[in-house]
Amino acid sequence: MFTNNFTNLLKIDFPIIQAPMAGGITTSKFVAAVCNNGALGMIGAGYISPIQLREQIREVKELTSNSFGVNLFVPGEFEISENKIEIANRLLNRYREQLNIQEEKVTLPSVEDGFQSYMQQIQVVIEEKVPICSFTFGVPTADVMRKFKQHNVTTIGTATTVAEAISIEKLGMDAVVVQGSEAGGHRGNFIGDHEESLIGLMTLIPQVADIVNIPVIAAGGIMDGRGLMASLCSGAKAVQMGTAFLTCEESGAHPLHKEAIMHSKDGDTTLTRTFSGKWARGINNKFIMEMGEYEDTIPNFPIQNALTQSIRKASAHQNNKEYMSLWAGQNAKLARVETVEQLVQRVMNEARKVNG
Amino acid sequence: MFTNNFTNLLKIDFPIIQAPMAGGITTSKFVAAVCNNGALGMIGAGYISPIQLREQIREVKELTSNSFGVNLFVPGEFEISENKIEIANRLLNRYREQLNIQEEKVTLPSVEDGFQSYMQQIQVVIEEKVPICSFTFGVPTADVMRKFKQHNVTTIGTATTVAEAISIEKLGMDAVVVQGSEAGGHRGNFIGDHEESLIGLMTLIPQVADIVNIPVIAAGGIMDGRGLMASLCSGAKAVQMGTAFLTCEESGAHPLHKEAIMHSKDGDTTLTRTFSGKWARGINNKFIMEMGEYEDTIPNFPIQNALTQSIRKASAHQNNKEYMSLWAGQNAKLARVETVEQLVQRVMNEARKVNG
Repeated sequence: MFTNNFTNLLKIDFPIIQAPMAGGITTSKFVAAVCNNGALGMIGAGYISPIQLREQIREVKELTSNSFGVNLFVPGEFEISENKIEIANRLLNRYREQLNIQEEKVTLPSVEDGFQSYMQQIQVVIEEKVPICSFTFGVPTADVMRKFKQHNVTTIGTATTVAEAISIEKLGMDAVVVQGSEAGGHRGNFIGDHEESLIGLMTLIPQVADIVNIPVIAAGGIMDGRGLMASLCSGAKAVQMGTAFLTCEESGAHPLHKEAIMHSKDGDTTLTRTFSGKWARGINNKFIMEMGEYEDTIPNFPIQNALTQSIRKASAHQNNKEYMSLWAGQNAKLARVETVEQLVQRVMNEARKVNG
Repeated sequence: MFTNNFTNLLKIDFPIIQAPMAGGITTSKFVAAVCNNGALGMIGAGYISPIQLREQIREVKELTSNSFGVNLFVPGEFEISENKIEIANRLLNRYREQLNIQEEKVTLPSVEDGFQSYMQQIQVVIEEKVPICSFTFGVPTADVMRKFKQHNVTTIGTATTVAEAISIEKLGMDAVVVQGSEAGGHRGNFIGDHEESLIGLMTLIPQVADIVNIPVIAAGGIMDGRGLMASLCSGAKAVQMGTAFLTCEESGAHPLHKEAIMHSKDGDTTLTRTFSGKWARGINNKFIMEMGEYEDTIPNFPIQNALTQSIRKASAHQNNKEYMSLWAGQNAKLARVETVEQLVQRVMNEARKVNG
């Protein structure tokens, strides 16, 4: 039940992947701890430079000889609307003042820089012989896919709908993560609109498993052996867990982020564009509630992300959780503080028990 | 795995409940077919009069000697805003004209009539010795609960959040249906707002099962043995299936409704208030798309429901699916046309296979 061709391909003991949470959570120590405990550790490389990525890959390799992976954000085209930026800045200035952020000009991302950095990250993954690479917010080009195949990199796409899963299989990727509406952090949708992509995991797994031939990895709200078993019964070959790993002792998440998850209640999480310009699920706070009123005027990703960066940073620095992005899935209330080893062992023991 | 104290209490062979879909779908023949095949048939009594309910209960009893149930809508207070009704009527008149509906004054529901009819329905359920009664849109009063207990009626509440499930257990009900965000038809939320109640089923089951001691029934997008097994693994004692039963040969759903479900694609369903004033999930059509632009101005349930009744009826009569409420869950694309017997047997066979 728990090992299959896919876990063999990934060279892992258990069908558990640690979600590649970007933004400092997936430290080398944390990723290596996951790998050393029979699950798949993933570096969330979305916001780091190619140079930083190379350093981290080398660090992870020193800490584990097991298989691990890297996740990349696929950059897209985006418009820079001076008008929207001005409105956003006007709204954000009160937070900058409140948090005593020294006014400095925000460096806006450019489409060209985004693509260049992404292509360099890909080069790093290949040069450093990373065995597994997953993608969010889109799919690589056919050219890039050919490169990965040449170098025997196992590739994994992220889908929120059946249509996205089909496009991932067509490209020749080796597996697909299906992200249910329950999932914490950014929505991975890249075809159609956001609303269409809010499909519950128990619905998304069988729909995708019926259509594609590549292995399906279930993601969204999975916190324990029950979630693992439910996913496998629904047609998944493995699960990807984010929030459950985030509160582990080894994770690099900010203590306030962990604390917010541990104290979260039913209904605490919400979908918001306020932090990054892209829909993401997190624990409700002042920033989400106040800025949420202007959801329609907020610039798209990655512009809004750049505009709010200093606010999120200062808020974390000042131990104020009201202006931080506290990403979490809908099952946050089931989170525990434990070591990675304890988490993996617990999930597997629970799953064996459910399995009878 | 498939029978337990709860299936024994309900006196059913399989842990499957047919969702009490209101509006003509749950004909006596259909409900009895479900009961005669080892699952629990439910009369959706939300929109029928106490007299009609008594007739139907007697019909079902003639067709089956097995256990069956009735579902009641718990009426709530609502405001009648002349202004909102006028705006709604202005928007709806173009559809009335298009469908050649003779202008007649719509009889608006009143809070008093709603409560009176509900109390009479309860009296019918008790007098006719219906063994099981479930509730949607709220919970009965403590007084009503005492009555049910005296007459040994098994009571089941419907929850969309942990808080709602707790309130159902506190009232002394025997079980709770947890309705995931995937579910077709009306959202059953009755505490807090609609957004909070959109919790994916795989998240909602374990959260509720951890907190309440009464049996949890999983609902939302369950179409086959995989969904049944995933629900049981997650902590449910049974499942409630709507869309899967709706397309059965015996169901009283309009042929166009069945056809729309059979032809539905990924992303076809949407949440809308346009038909009834209460959020519900159905297959997208012209009415939802056009009226959706005025979502904020639409009167609350049951006012909007009364205002759109003639439109839905005429649309069905004229074989035009664009102005009918085509309720369906997110897994609609997995629906099949088969008999109730075939559906129940298939689900159980699939579940046994998944279970190994």
